[in-house]
Amino acid sequence: MKIGANYLGGDRCEFIVWGPNIESLGVQIVSPEERFLQMEQEDGYWKVVADNIPPGTQYLLELNGGETRPDPASYFQPHGVHKPSQVISHEFTWNDGDWAGVPLDAMIIYELHVGTFTPEGTFTAIIPRLADLKELGVNAIEIMPIAQFPGNIPPDGSCAYRNWGYDGVYPFAVQNSYGTPEELKQLVAACHQQGISVILDVVYNHFGPEGNYTSNFAPYFTQTYRTPWGSAINFDDAHSHDVRHFFIENALYWLREFHIDGLRLDAVHAIYDLGAKHFLAELAEKVREFSERQGRKYYLIAESDLNDPKIIRPKEVGGYELDAQWSDDFHHALHALLTGDSDGYYQDFGKCEDLAKAYRDTFVYDWKYAPHRQRFHGSSARDRTDLAQFVVCIQNHDQIGNQLLGERLSKLISFDALKLAAGAVILSPYIPLLFMGEEYAEEAPFTYFVSHSDPDLIKAVREGRKQEFAAFHAVGDPPDPESSKTFLGCKMDWEKRQEGKHQVIWSWYQKLIQLRTTVPALIKKERNSIEAGADEQQKIV
Amino acid sequence: MKIGANYLGGDRCEFIVWGPNIESLGVQIVSPEERFLQMEQEDGYWKVVADNIPPGTQYLLELNGGETRPDPASYFQPHGVHKPSQVISHEFTWNDGDWAGVPLDAMIIYELHVGTFTPEGTFTAIIPRLADLKELGVNAIEIMPIAQFPGNIPPDGSCAYRNWGYDGVYPFAVQNSYGTPEELKQLVAACHQQGISVILDVVYNHFGPEGNYTSNFAPYFTQTYRTPWGSAINFDDAHSHDVRHFFIENALYWLREFHIDGLRLDAVHAIYDLGAKHFLAELAEKVREFSERQGRKYYLIAESDLNDPKIIRPKEVGGYELDAQWSDDFHHALHALLTGDSDGYYQDFGKCEDLAKAYRDTFVYDWKYAPHRQRFHGSSARDRTDLAQFVVCIQNHDQIGNQLLGERLSKLISFDALKLAAGAVILSPYIPLLFMGEEYAEEAPFTYFVSHSDPDLIKAVREGRKQEFAAFHAVGDPPDPESSKTFLGCKMDWEKRQEGKHQVIWSWYQKLIQLRTTVPALIKKERNSIEAGADEQQKIV
Repeated sequence: MKIGANYLGGDRCEFIVWGPNIESLGVQIVSPEERFLQMEQEDGYWKVVADNIPPGTQYLLELNGGETRPDPASYFQPHGVHKPSQVISHEFTWNDGDWAGVPLDAMIIYELHVGTFTPEGTFTAIIPRLADLKELGVNAIEIMPIAQFPGNIPPDGSCAYRNWGYDGVYPFAVQNSYGTPEELKQLVAACHQQGISVILDVVYNHFGPEGNYTSNFAPYFTQTYRTPWGSAINFDDAHSHDVRHFFIENALYWLREFHIDGLRLDAVHAIYDLGAKHFLAELAEKVREFSERQGRKYYLIAESDLNDPKIIRPKEVGGYELDAQWSDDFHHALHALLTGDSDGYYQDFGKCEDLAKAYRDTFVYDWKYAPHRQRFHGSSARDRTDLAQFVVCIQNHDQIGNQLLGERLSKLISFDALKLAAGAVILSPYIPLLFMGEEYAEEAPFTYFVSHSDPDLIKAVREGRKQEFAAFHAVGDPPDPESSKTFLGCKMDWEKRQEGKHQVIWSWYQKLIQLRTTVPALIKKERNSIEAGADEQQKIV
Repeated sequence: MKIGANYLGGDRCEFIVWGPNIESLGVQIVSPEERFLQMEQEDGYWKVVADNIPPGTQYLLELNGGETRPDPASYFQPHGVHKPSQVISHEFTWNDGDWAGVPLDAMIIYELHVGTFTPEGTFTAIIPRLADLKELGVNAIEIMPIAQFPGNIPPDGSCAYRNWGYDGVYPFAVQNSYGTPEELKQLVAACHQQGISVILDVVYNHFGPEGNYTSNFAPYFTQTYRTPWGSAINFDDAHSHDVRHFFIENALYWLREFHIDGLRLDAVHAIYDLGAKHFLAELAEKVREFSERQGRKYYLIAESDLNDPKIIRPKEVGGYELDAQWSDDFHHALHALLTGDSDGYYQDFGKCEDLAKAYRDTFVYDWKYAPHRQRFHGSSARDRTDLAQFVVCIQNHDQIGNQLLGERLSKLISFDALKLAAGAVILSPYIPLLFMGEEYAEEAPFTYFVSHSDPDLIKAVREGRKQEFAAFHAVGDPPDPESSKTFLGCKMDWEKRQEGKHQVIWSWYQKLIQLRTTVPALIKKERNSIEAGADEQQKIV
C-alpha cells in the first residue's frame, strides 16, 4: 500500500492514509481552492482518488468530521509541521542512468548538515562545493536528517528552522527550509555526475517532540518500551505490521524517488523489537529486493550503540544482514588518547591498547566490563572479516556536539596531533567518515541547536542539555540550544580551506586519501591482514 | 560471588549480599539470640563471616542503620515474605550418585502444583504418588514455581498461602507452606529412585507484587521496559551483570543443591534484554558448563510466546541454545478444533490445517498475520529438525486457568474427544506435557488463586482478572481469586483415578504412553519423518 498523496499525472491524485481506529476521514483541500474529499476505508487504510489536484495543492486531513491535521506521510510541508501538506509530482529528468554507485569498501564518507554547511543552508548551495569535495577525494556525502522538523519563526523572520534533524516528524517530507523535493533531486543528480554517492541519515527510532500528530491516526507507538527521547515506536505490538510498512516504504521512497544510494539508520539500539523477525532484518530484506530489481546495490548502514555484530551478520547465522555499522569504539579510543578526556563515556577508554584493539578486533568492548556503563558490553566482531562493514571517524556531529562548547578536534588538540588523527582514520582498514570542515581544520563549533515553539518544551530542552553535561563533569553552561546565535555560530567558513594551516590540513587529507586508494596494503580491508599492538609506556600503537 | 547465607559447617556462616548503593549494611540476628554483625563492602557486595550461627538461625538485614529487610537471596522464609530469613545447612545424604537423568527426547512430563496436587499441599505428600505416576508411564515431573510467595493468614489460620507460584519474591527460598529445603531434597531423591526426573518452573521475568524488597538493595529493575506484571528486571542496564549473576546463581542453586534435572523458564518473552549477549544465552552457557563439570545433562526449557526458534538454535547460528521450548500453537490448534472456542487467542485457530501445520512445522504462526495479535507473528522452525526440542500439551495450568471457571478439558469436551486429544498429544512427535489429573480426567477446576494482604492489591487483582475475561467475551464473573474456597476447590481428588470413566482414561493414557515408547515410528522424532495434511470438510487431520 503506497501511503501519502500520490500524484498520478494529469492533475489526478490518489490520497492514502493509514488510520485503523478513525471513524471517518476526509481530505480538506486548502488551496488553490477549498474542497472536501470524503475517503473510504479498507483494511485500516483510507483512500480517495480525485481530479483537479495539480502538484502544489495543499491539504489537511479531517478526522472524524472534526479536527484537521497534516498527513503523517506528507511529502512536503511548505509552511512547517503544523500547517497543510502539499501534493508533489515526482516527475524529474534524471541523467544518472548509468550510475552504478560507489562500492561500500571504496567509500570516503563526508557527513554534512545542510543548515550549517553553507551560508544559505540549502540543498542547492551544496552543489557548487561538490567539485572541491571530489578533489579532496571524498566519494560519498552523508546528509544529516532532512525530514521536516519544527521551527519557530523569530520576530525578525530569520533562520526560523534550526535543528540537527533528529526532531523530524514527517519522515517523508523534505525539510522546507532546505529546499523542495525537486531541489534535493537536483543535488543527488549533481553528486552522481561527480561520481559521489549520497547517503541519507534517517530516524526510525522516535519522532520529534513537536508537530507529531501520528497518534491521532494510528498506534505508531508502544507503551512496552521507552526510548531516551520518549515513546518507542511500535515495531512489535498490535498493528506493528503497518508501522513497519510505513518505515519500509519510507526507506524505499528515498532510494526510488530521490536515487539516494544508501541510508544511515540512526540509533538502531532504540528500535525496540522483540518479535521473531526484527524490523531491521525485514527492512534489509526489502532493500535487498529493491537492489536486485534495480540492478545496483543500495546500502544500509546502522548507527548502533550495541557493539553487536548481529546487525551486519548474514541471515543464515541469525543476523539482520545490514551492510555496515558505525563503530564508535574507534573514535572513543583515539579521542581519549589524543585529548586525555576521561569523563563520561571516555572513562571506558584511554589506553593505547584500546586503540590497538579497535584496529584489531573493531570492538574494544566485546562483552567486557565497561565502567561508565556499569555493565558488560558488546560482543566479538572477529567473525566479521570484511572490515569495510564498519564506519569509523575521529569526529562526527554527536562527538563534537557532546563537547560543552561544541569544540571540534581542531580546538582540542595540537596541529601535529590533528595530522596524526587524520592518518589514524584515513589509513585505517575501516570506512572513514569525515565531519564537514574536518578536512581543513574548521574551528567553528558544532553544538546542539533547536527551535521549538512550545515554551515548556524549550525550557525542558535547555535543562536537559545542562544535565547531560553534568554527567561529563563539565564546568560552565553549554550555549543556549534554542538561540539562533548558537545555530549561526556553527556555520562553516568554507573560504578558510585555502588559507595557512587550514590549507596544510586540507592537502594532508587529500594526500592521505590518495595513499588509501592507491597503496595495495591499504586497499585490502580484511581482518586477517591487520596486526596491532600497544606500548603504554612509550604511548605507541 | 556466592550470594546468600552460606552455612560453612561448625556453626560458621558467611553472609553475602549485593547492595551497590547502600551506605552501610549489617546482619541483625533475630534468633536464637539477638546479635548484630556489621558487614564490609567490596565491589558492591557486603560480606561478613560469623561463628555461633547454627542452621535455623533467623536474621534480617539492616540497611543504612535503619530499616530491616529479609535477605533478597534468602534460602528460606519460615514465616513468609515479610519476616526474617533463615540460615540453611545444605548437608543432605543423597543416594542418587548413579542417576543419569531422563534424556529430553524420552520425557513424558507431568506438570503439578504442589498446593493442590495433594490434600496436604506439601512436597512430602507427593512422594507416595510417584509410584502411580511411574506406573502410568510418566518419567518427569514439572513443579510449578516454589519460590516464596506472599500469603495472608486468614482468621481461622487455614490455608494462608495459595498462589500458582508466579508471584514469588524470594527466588532462592523454598515456599514455606510446601515444606523445607530438606523436604524438597527428599522429594527429588525419591523421584530419582523411581527413575523420574524433576523439572522446576522458575520465574526470571518479574517479581511478585507483595514482599519484594529487592529495590531497597540494588537496581534489580529497569525503567526501559514494562512487563504485563509491572517493572521489568534489569538484564541490560547499569549493574545488569550482578542481576544476571543473581539469576544464574539461582539456576545453578537448584541444580547443584537440590539435584533438580532441568528448569522450565517462565515467559521468556518478558525477559527484556537488548544487549549483545542475551541473558538466556549466558544462562545456557553457564548451565552447559555445569553439565560438563557434573558429567550429566541438565536441561533448560523455555516457555515462550515468541514462536522464535532463536531460543533453541545453536549459538553458531545466532541462537540462545536452550534445550527446548514450549509450543502453544499445538495446544491452541487442538483446543479450538475440539471445543469450537473462537474467543481471545483461539480466534487465531480453528482450522484442521492449523493442527496439521502444528504437526508438520511446529509453529502455526511462522511470520503469518495473527488476527488476535493484530500483527505478524513467529518465525519458521523448520530448521529445528529434532522435534524433541518442543514441549506440547492439550492443557496446562495457564490454558485451564484462562477458562472462566477454570474448566479442564474433561469438562469441555466429550469422553471420546478426550481420548482423541490424549492420543493427539501422546502420540505426537513432540515432548508431551500432562497437567496433573489429566491422566484420569479430573474434573475439579484449576482457576487462578492468590492471597495478598494489601487491600488495594487484592482489589486490583480481582478487577484485573475480570478484565482479562472481558477479552474472551466471557459471560459472568470468574471465581474470586482471593478466596480460599477457590483454592480449596482446585484440589485434586486422586482417588477418582480408580473409578469408572476416570479409570478408563487412566488406562488409555497408560496404553498411549506404552505405544509412544515402544512403536519404532513413534520413537523417532525427526521433522523429515512427519507428514500431515488436513481436510476441512471432513474435519480430518
